[in-house]
Amino acid sequence: MDKPKLFTVGPTYVNDDVRAEMRNQMFSHRSSDYVELHRELIEKLRKFLQTENDIFLYTSSSTGCMESAVRNCISEQGTALSTICGAFGKRFSEIVTGNGRKVVTSEVLWGKANRAEQLDEALSKNPGIEAVTITHCETSTGLLNPLEELCKVAKEHDVLILADTVSSMSGTRIEVDKLGIDFCFSGVQKCFTVPPGLAIATVSKKALKKAETVKNRGHYFDFLNLKKYNDKHMIPYTPPMPQMFGLSKQLDLIFEEGIENRFERHRKVSARVRNGCKDMGFSVFPDEKYAAPTLSCISVPKGFDIKEMQNKMNERGFILASGYGKIKDTTFRVGNMGNVTMDDVCEMLENLEEVI
Amino acid sequence: MDKPKLFTVGPTYVNDDVRAEMRNQMFSHRSSDYVELHRELIEKLRKFLQTENDIFLYTSSSTGCMESAVRNCISEQGTALSTICGAFGKRFSEIVTGNGRKVVTSEVLWGKANRAEQLDEALSKNPGIEAVTITHCETSTGLLNPLEELCKVAKEHDVLILADTVSSMSGTRIEVDKLGIDFCFSGVQKCFTVPPGLAIATVSKKALKKAETVKNRGHYFDFLNLKKYNDKHMIPYTPPMPQMFGLSKQLDLIFEEGIENRFERHRKVSARVRNGCKDMGFSVFPDEKYAAPTLSCISVPKGFDIKEMQNKMNERGFILASGYGKIKDTTFRVGNMGNVTMDDVCEMLENLEEVI
Repeated sequence: MDKPKLFTVGPTYVNDDVRAEMRNQMFSHRSSDYVELHRELIEKLRKFLQTENDIFLYTSSSTGCMESAVRNCISEQGTALSTICGAFGKRFSEIVTGNGRKVVTSEVLWGKANRAEQLDEALSKNPGIEAVTITHCETSTGLLNPLEELCKVAKEHDVLILADTVSSMSGTRIEVDKLGIDFCFSGVQKCFTVPPGLAIATVSKKALKKAETVKNRGHYFDFLNLKKYNDKHMIPYTPPMPQMFGLSKQLDLIFEEGIENRFERHRKVSARVRNGCKDMGFSVFPDEKYAAPTLSCISVPKGFDIKEMQNKMNERGFILASGYGKIKDTTFRVGNMGNVTMDDVCEMLENLEEVI
Repeated sequence: MDKPKLFTVGPTYVNDDVRAEMRNQMFSHRSSDYVELHRELIEKLRKFLQTENDIFLYTSSSTGCMESAVRNCISEQGTALSTICGAFGKRFSEIVTGNGRKVVTSEVLWGKANRAEQLDEALSKNPGIEAVTITHCETSTGLLNPLEELCKVAKEHDVLILADTVSSMSGTRIEVDKLGIDFCFSGVQKCFTVPPGLAIATVSKKALKKAETVKNRGHYFDFLNLKKYNDKHMIPYTPPMPQMFGLSKQLDLIFEEGIENRFERHRKVSARVRNGCKDMGFSVFPDEKYAAPTLSCISVPKGFDIKEMQNKMNERGFILASGYGKIKDTTFRVGNMGNVTMDDVCEMLENLEEVI
């Protein structure tokens, strides 16, 4: 396969140069070679994310970062407020309660965005909230929440901001420091287009200070232990070195393309997907004003056989993603995270039109 | 580099065929292709480990498995007994307390083995212990604890057995079911010789039953969630697919060599290392009766410059591991995990003799 025909929502299609890097031979994760790899990678990530915060590497998926956020940023008897507009916002709230913390939710219908007014109201009604969980891009509905306005309200209420940017980081601008995001995380298998197995997070001084007061943070996801090793350009346990090699190479390719060009490409390509689908008689599931630039969630007309369409597309080498959770049977999704170009989606849309 | 000259204690030298597999293109971790990859890999692991227990895959290092063991097998107010004979046994006990559980330790001097009598005494003196943590191979001292006799005692006291087999699994026989080990885990970057980023664990029915009674198990390392997905040949979050490709290939190579041949090779090669080092005037750090078959911890004479020796060996392309923790300045370590052959260590020993 020469061209990316994977329109899934992660793991995304990884280009040859990055996969070639994954083949590198191993060395000790306590050696000076490793320190150099770690240091360089963090430097590139810092340049890319434009943050002064610490950047942690996790040997885990992004879900591990959620657990880390909860165990370090919410006291054992504390409460978080979870904004929810789909399956992944819901998951974040469940990880709060799964770790014995209390949660208040601020929910909207699937397809709608979480908005500042509602968050403001929820925070005003519930004094003592320690942190807010926000899903930047809700992958189940293809919606990008208005992060800037949500962060503004959270800052006014002086609560920690824990932002799931799993399917948006590297596909759209996220101004971590300007917005004051205390914990901002993603996995490398989404817009970074590196094979899965490595997650990254930015951690503010305020979040680290909070962790110092939280008991029972565990060991594996403990901020203070991660910080101690990160300051030495290491992680406390064995890192997923192949993914680190891959991400380092991928960041070089991203800088080559230009960060802004990359964001612009995602925006244009996703708009093309939505318009193409609408032209064929489909509709866009989420409120289009908030449609995500990294994936599209497309509703089908009543009686349309999604499975059959997917199978026919598969035969032609195009892999589209299924719907997720409670809208599984009425939607499909088209990812354009990472390396997907305008030509790729045009070719895919032509084939989709022939197939249906 | 054509031949393995990496005598570290993990990550270990990965052979070309396995690294080539790591280059495979991605696909969705919710697709039938993934289900097939997962199912086949578990089948091979089951054949290799000869256990009827569930086998979980973790997107984490082995340390994550320790956290998983603690959060699922010890009640929130419960107590574990940690057998300790070095740094990694100590780490396991710290993960118990780091997760808010209580711990009683049964400690011996570094270099000595944990023995059945002492464990029996500790368990008799401390009624109500829910689980025992055992370090099979203590990587800091190069010592292999007598797992069979320790498990026998633990079974008599009817406590769960949580066994760290990180640096022994696939380098020596571990009869999970016969010994009644409830949770037995390792990372793939040690004797399996796959790049780091994937950990595996066998989980007994008894351990799963216990987890049902334990509150606040969290989400990421929750046995019941892992079990739910594992039954569908998936993991609950995104798996480290490159390492899965690699491990699947590596297991084929292990079956080709023959499991028993592999164990025998480790035993013989490590004995050669110890004898070679003794011939040069070094001594073996641990009680030799319990010397590990997968790595050797070697004491140097007073005044011997370990750093200089390592540097000179590095110049010749041989990487030896440093000592660990409190014996860092008086020992070095020679790993022979995975693919290291008799020829490899003979060549290394010849060079070591010239260097010192």
